[in-house]
Amino acid sequence: MHPFTSHLAESVRAHGELGLIAAIRRWLGTASPPAPFGIGDDCAVLPASRHRQLVTVDPVVYGEHFDDSIPPRAVAAKLLKRNLSDLAAMGGRPRAAVIALALDETVSARWLEQFYRGLAATARAYNVAIVGGDITRQKGGLAATLTLLGEAQGPRVLTRHGAKTGDWIYVTGTLGGSILGHHHKFTPRLSEGAWLAGRLEVRSLMDISDGLAKDLPALTPAGATPSVCPPAVPLSAAARTLARRDGRPALAHALSDGEDFELLFTVAARADRAALEKAWSKKFSTRLTCIGRFTPTLEAGALPLDQFHGYEHLR
Amino acid sequence: MHPFTSHLAESVRAHGELGLIAAIRRWLGTASPPAPFGIGDDCAVLPASRHRQLVTVDPVVYGEHFDDSIPPRAVAAKLLKRNLSDLAAMGGRPRAAVIALALDETVSARWLEQFYRGLAATARAYNVAIVGGDITRQKGGLAATLTLLGEAQGPRVLTRHGAKTGDWIYVTGTLGGSILGHHHKFTPRLSEGAWLAGRLEVRSLMDISDGLAKDLPALTPAGATPSVCPPAVPLSAAARTLARRDGRPALAHALSDGEDFELLFTVAARADRAALEKAWSKKFSTRLTCIGRFTPTLEAGALPLDQFHGYEHLR
Repeated sequence: MHPFTSHLAESVRAHGELGLIAAIRRWLGTASPPAPFGIGDDCAVLPASRHRQLVTVDPVVYGEHFDDSIPPRAVAAKLLKRNLSDLAAMGGRPRAAVIALALDETVSARWLEQFYRGLAATARAYNVAIVGGDITRQKGGLAATLTLLGEAQGPRVLTRHGAKTGDWIYVTGTLGGSILGHHHKFTPRLSEGAWLAGRLEVRSLMDISDGLAKDLPALTPAGATPSVCPPAVPLSAAARTLARRDGRPALAHALSDGEDFELLFTVAARADRAALEKAWSKKFSTRLTCIGRFTPTLEAGALPLDQFHGYEHLR
Repeated sequence: MHPFTSHLAESVRAHGELGLIAAIRRWLGTASPPAPFGIGDDCAVLPASRHRQLVTVDPVVYGEHFDDSIPPRAVAAKLLKRNLSDLAAMGGRPRAAVIALALDETVSARWLEQFYRGLAATARAYNVAIVGGDITRQKGGLAATLTLLGEAQGPRVLTRHGAKTGDWIYVTGTLGGSILGHHHKFTPRLSEGAWLAGRLEVRSLMDISDGLAKDLPALTPAGATPSVCPPAVPLSAAARTLARRDGRPALAHALSDGEDFELLFTVAARADRAALEKAWSKKFSTRLTCIGRFTPTLEAGALPLDQFHGYEHLR
């Protein structure tokens, strides 16, 4: 759906600012609590919490993250789920979100209504309260920036740091070819992330958003290299489809395509991996794969990851 | 300073994403704590707090909130201070902020460096930790969205609701003509807001960002009208200067110009106003003015506020 309209009466300009805010509150419905806990005051108010707080921010920009082919509901769902994936990557649970919209005044009110209804549906599904936001004009633009607030579920937050040489590398789900649909149909791995934070043998965690080859170095301890075993990398059906179309290996897609939104984590070298994997499969149907380990030098037959490039945001 | 450059070597594109993030961390310096408390992980982590948490979000957009005439340091300072003013308007104190940048790849690295150095300086001055962010491409655009997290200082958060018919209306500072410089030189009234939250005779509070005439209705109780006494409205020198230039009354500027970033609050009808004002002037040099009260109908000689329009964001 094209977000802009040439008919003034159908544009956000015809609503005016106050009319638009009233409409947005209607579209959000129960996903947005009343002020001061939600929209309508200078700040939103959240109750005190005895847990550590988590914060992340991610935008969607017209022409970059979505175009006319993506329904506005799916744009909004993707925006919230991208942020939820970051929260899953720390083992946290969501609390609330604020959303800032920058838009040309010719954006159609119908597009915006669908966007906010999609946001509300996704927010309800994941227990996120939309507590505030901002609308501002931007000539020719359409961008939404969502800041997600969450909290640790227990005493432990899993960061990107903590892996040691010898530790095992795990990944959830399958990788590659996200552009064929997964990039807006994915499920953020919140339950999985929270569960991993409770397992002491898991030492570090992140989500894969720019491709395994670009993201894995962030978990790699100093003085080590990730030795990833090529046949172990779980290829998605979409990666294979793309490979048939463009002639590049499916493995290259799995390593380089962005927006997998799967979890990537490391397990202590001496851990009982069989016990971990058994406990996982009792709890989740999500696929779990050990793809390699951190070694002092690249093992024979392992993938030279630096020859693959992930998604680069500014080129 | 013009934010865009036609020389590739001077653009953010030449830095690439990872190079740019490294540079931003350098520019932010001590204003940004190390991960996981700051930039560098999937989420930022904030310690647990026994206070209620406050959240607000505001952007600055090129062509809307700033242009080539505003130095990038001042753009960043304004962005953070706009949000701090919202926090002051609840009586809160700041904790941390995340910043999302959407920019064309021809934005100059020099502009961006000045912007982040300005952000860091303002963040240090107001005790705000810059704990995370995002950078994304937006063709032809330049916008920064800042989400500020704060907390209540005591048991009380002051909202926009609570005033009753008969209550007094107060304003800090002077109003109008912000465009002549105040709009980026203002001081968010954080100490004043926190102090007001501790005074039980103060019933509601907000900041004036769109002009008194547009903002005051938000504090007005149902069934009442604000009777504002025209000579009582504190006119800024800038409002008088603008009046001389454009022939409109200075009072019209004080009522309608946006971006005063002063506090507007209400005091219980039966309160000891002399005691409040005396305590205020012992504590603050900031001007404090009672401009009227809420009455069942408009009092003779009072301002018909609905004839003045504040700043409208979408027209």
